[in-house]
Amino acid sequence: MKIGRQTHRASAICTSNAATIVVRGRDLCEELIGHISFTDHVWLLITGELPSEAQRRVFDAALVAIAEHGLVPSVQASRMTLAAAPEALQGAVAAGLLGCGSVILGAAEDAGRLLHEVVTRTGSSGSTQTAASEVVREYRDAQRAIPGYGHPLHKGYDPRARRLLDVAKQTQVRGRYVEAAEAIDSVLPEITGKPLAMNVSAAIPAILLDAGYPLLALKGAPLLARTASLIAHLLEERSRPIGFVLSHAGAAAIDYDGPKPDGFVADDR
Amino acid sequence: MKIGRQTHRASAICTSNAATIVVRGRDLCEELIGHISFTDHVWLLITGELPSEAQRRVFDAALVAIAEHGLVPSVQASRMTLAAAPEALQGAVAAGLLGCGSVILGAAEDAGRLLHEVVTRTGSSGSTQTAASEVVREYRDAQRAIPGYGHPLHKGYDPRARRLLDVAKQTQVRGRYVEAAEAIDSVLPEITGKPLAMNVSAAIPAILLDAGYPLLALKGAPLLARTASLIAHLLEERSRPIGFVLSHAGAAAIDYDGPKPDGFVADDR
Amino acid sequence: MKIGRQTHRASAICTSNAATIVVRGRDLCEELIGHISFTDHVWLLITGELPSEAQRRVFDAALVAIAEHGLVPSVQASRMTLAAAPEALQGAVAAGLLGCGSVILGAAEDAGRLLHEVVTRTGSSGSTQTAASEVVREYRDAQRAIPGYGHPLHKGYDPRARRLLDVAKQTQVRGRYVEAAEAIDSVLPEITGKPLAMNVSAAIPAILLDAGYPLLALKGAPLLARTASLIAHLLEERSRPIGFVLSHAGAAAIDYDGPKPDGFVADDR
Amino acid sequence: MKIGRQTHRASAICTSNAATIVVRGRDLCEELIGHISFTDHVWLLITGELPSEAQRRVFDAALVAIAEHGLVPSVQASRMTLAAAPEALQGAVAAGLLGCGSVILGAAEDAGRLLHEVVTRTGSSGSTQTAASEVVREYRDAQRAIPGYGHPLHKGYDPRARRLLDVAKQTQVRGRYVEAAEAIDSVLPEITGKPLAMNVSAAIPAILLDAGYPLLALKGAPLLARTASLIAHLLEERSRPIGFVLSHAGAAAIDYDGPKPDGFVADDR
Repeated sequence: MKIGRQTHRASAICTSNAATIVVRGRDLCEELIGHISFTDHVWLLITGELPSEAQRRVFDAALVAIAEHGLVPSVQASRMTLAAAPEALQGAVAAGLLGCGSVILGAAEDAGRLLHEVVTRTGSSGSTQTAASEVVREYRDAQRAIPGYGHPLHKGYDPRARRLLDVAKQTQVRGRYVEAAEAIDSVLPEITGKPLAMNVSAAIPAILLDAGYPLLALKGAPLLARTASLIAHLLEERSRPIGFVLSHAGAAAIDYDGPKPDGFVADDR
Repeated sequence: MKIGRQTHRASAICTSNAATIVVRGRDLCEELIGHISFTDHVWLLITGELPSEAQRRVFDAALVAIAEHGLVPSVQASRMTLAAAPEALQGAVAAGLLGCGSVILGAAEDAGRLLHEVVTRTGSSGSTQTAASEVVREYRDAQRAIPGYGHPLHKGYDPRARRLLDVAKQTQVRGRYVEAAEAIDSVLPEITGKPLAMNVSAAIPAILLDAGYPLLALKGAPLLARTASLIAHLLEERSRPIGFVLSHAGAAAIDYDGPKPDGFVADDR
Repeated sequence: MKIGRQTHRASAICTSNAATIVVRGRDLCEELIGHISFTDHVWLLITGELPSEAQRRVFDAALVAIAEHGLVPSVQASRMTLAAAPEALQGAVAAGLLGCGSVILGAAEDAGRLLHEVVTRTGSSGSTQTAASEVVREYRDAQRAIPGYGHPLHKGYDPRARRLLDVAKQTQVRGRYVEAAEAIDSVLPEITGKPLAMNVSAAIPAILLDAGYPLLALKGAPLLARTASLIAHLLEERSRPIGFVLSHAGAAAIDYDGPKPDGFVADDR
Repeated sequence: MKIGRQTHRASAICTSNAATIVVRGRDLCEELIGHISFTDHVWLLITGELPSEAQRRVFDAALVAIAEHGLVPSVQASRMTLAAAPEALQGAVAAGLLGCGSVILGAAEDAGRLLHEVVTRTGSSGSTQTAASEVVREYRDAQRAIPGYGHPLHKGYDPRARRLLDVAKQTQVRGRYVEAAEAIDSVLPEITGKPLAMNVSAAIPAILLDAGYPLLALKGAPLLARTASLIAHLLEERSRPIGFVLSHAGAAAIDYDGPKPDGFVADDR
């Protein structure tokens, strides 16, 4: 079954023959393995070019910042999945990544679009502050959440966000996107009446976009970083399992409030 | 419902309060972000310790080597999934990772166990060559595949494997596991009568185990590396889609050989 | 970490003690197993009530209609995943379901919302035809696709859609949602200038919503039905594998159009 | 890249042209939709034949029995995933299915192999009881768990198992596999010294195999049934969310026992 137009039939990422593997135009074994870091390689895979020193430092900082934050829902889902299906580590990693969505972790791309809107608007209006106010008010009017601001634990500010902006400054990557992120940060409390501060999911697109990373690959940063975290948690789950402790505690927190047959009495849990 | 014993109720990876996130005993914002590379951080998450220079170089080399090899089945599954469900990038990444199994990509852990068996056996017998022969013959007698040897494209040798062993040598990480991998490589053709050469899935556990990486996290290396590759392919899929070209070509390669109602004539495809 | 409000802490689907499992208020072993069909049980799980005869017939028809349509992308992704990771059947099913998205298969919920909009609009304007025209024009103005109309293979009409509307008529379930679906079908060619006919993804929400099935569970129908199809394909994959034939054909359809090192010549494929 | 032999290039499940969809040799719209139940259709997809009345009743009973058992780990993983990623219902279903593994829910296939071994052994020895003892002792000697026996909640017996055997008796499907399952049930307490009773994961393969269902599709039964349960839970999650209550309770049950920076004090949770 032919679905959609099929005129484009090419890929520019990799080709190979029996002796040579070419990745983004470079000989994998001769030019890349042993010569560049994994972070360089990821940047090369995604953008087609090796990163500059500053780009690599910013990308490293973003990946380190977003990799791990304890027993978040996706980590719990992943550890429970391994406990139930120990034969497939890849399944447990996949279950964890499926929770990197629009509400948790996946906000980086949405926040990137928000910043991009402010940057574009600034181009015409001249003032980032004004553009930020306009865009935030439009989101509010449309009852859309402001992605990348506010955090359930780090209420005053998210220490990772502040640190990432420092790194952007040190590496001289700081530009229009960081400016937009800070402008939103400054107008948000007044417009919303809530103390919403920039979190890591706005800081990451801010510094990555200023570094020249593509907007459409933004969600890749938390996905890649969390894969590392999930592997660490799954290794721990194999040696010191807590998957069924998590599910027992979860179930015990929930009451049944549906109908019951006559005479049925639930067990003590 | 309580499943299994639940006496162990702790994790040693991360804790946090409103101001500070602690990862493996270190202050994430003060000590890690901006100071270490992503590769360092992954090693820290998995092992609890920062890597030495040699460990980082070997880990970087392994991740770079295994990240990308063109339109392999898992990449195709991932790109088709994004074409059908563009709303969830995480779903397309997950679909790709689910194909990192025992036959493709996931052989690293199985190969690690094979090497471990040879290394253990060598301890008692003294000769790695003898131990390798014994273990390979036992696998053959049990009709088990020899994980990490042979490749559908790189038949003479897998250039990535050779290159990774060079890196292990340069970094002075080369030890008993690489020796075991080479011993298997040398005895395999005679025992099996087939020109099976070491591929990247044996070289990776060989050098990582010699570097002190944990055996039970071996599968994490290809999973992490492939996540990077999938993100690159999915970015390309968003701008230059081929997902439905792949599925059309796949379907066209397969005939229907079941029963048909009277008079039914299939369309030309 | 507390995310969001947590005042609601109950579920109304199932409770149990050592002797009895209660599902939706009924004793699973005494009242359900051996007494009702799986279709009845699914309806009960989702709605809390057992279906009427008509509701069951319509639900059966919808599930039968959407289960199988050959080597669609999600089936190919699933079979390739099993070929690469035969140790985890659940992973191959999951990979297939991840492709039930907004473009393919997952349109049932979007189409349900479209129908709901027409039904709601009809309430005030009186004419379904007028309401359908209005809503379709609004979708067009907003450059939104019309979910549930048009099909790459069944261009004149989708025979499953026609058949499902017959079943709704026979079971006297036909109501405002089917009327809305037919009204859109009749106004669409003129408004769009294209011969877009109702497909199975509009017929299913039309008849299910008229039967009293909840709009927010619409996507469940194709997901459940496709799980059955995936299991059949994976059983076939285990005995007559084609997963790697699919991936070979897919890869062979795509050229590499990126840069190459000097002297690199691709192998014939 | 050609992986493995590719001589077989056919599928016998479905073919179609613009007017007709053929499933297992039958015209989907003329012969199946509106004429058969979903259970019939699943049996047809999997086996190639429509079920007898007894086969359908047994399959219905098995699917109803295994669909729902409250907030088990896979349901929790699924609900947390939807809470974090509400944009992709298919991702939440997939996350739930990934937990249908060898430890939980996926035991049906392993139990089927156990029963098959006893049935095969009985053929030569004559006594099912003797064969069951032999096979169970061999599993014990090899330190393998006995799949399908014992349950964390239903310790005396699993009421679903007993009920399913009743259905098999009523439908006259009861045969060598049920006999094998009961023989294991009777020898197990003495051999293991533990009160392990048959659970639903042994009863399902017993009755399905006696009904002529294929062994290699056994895991499909719990996967299909749980898909229905997951859809019900996800509909509830959309209207009465508990996903983040589950994750908060889970995290609160776990202590951090790794190193901490000087002066770090965890928040009260």
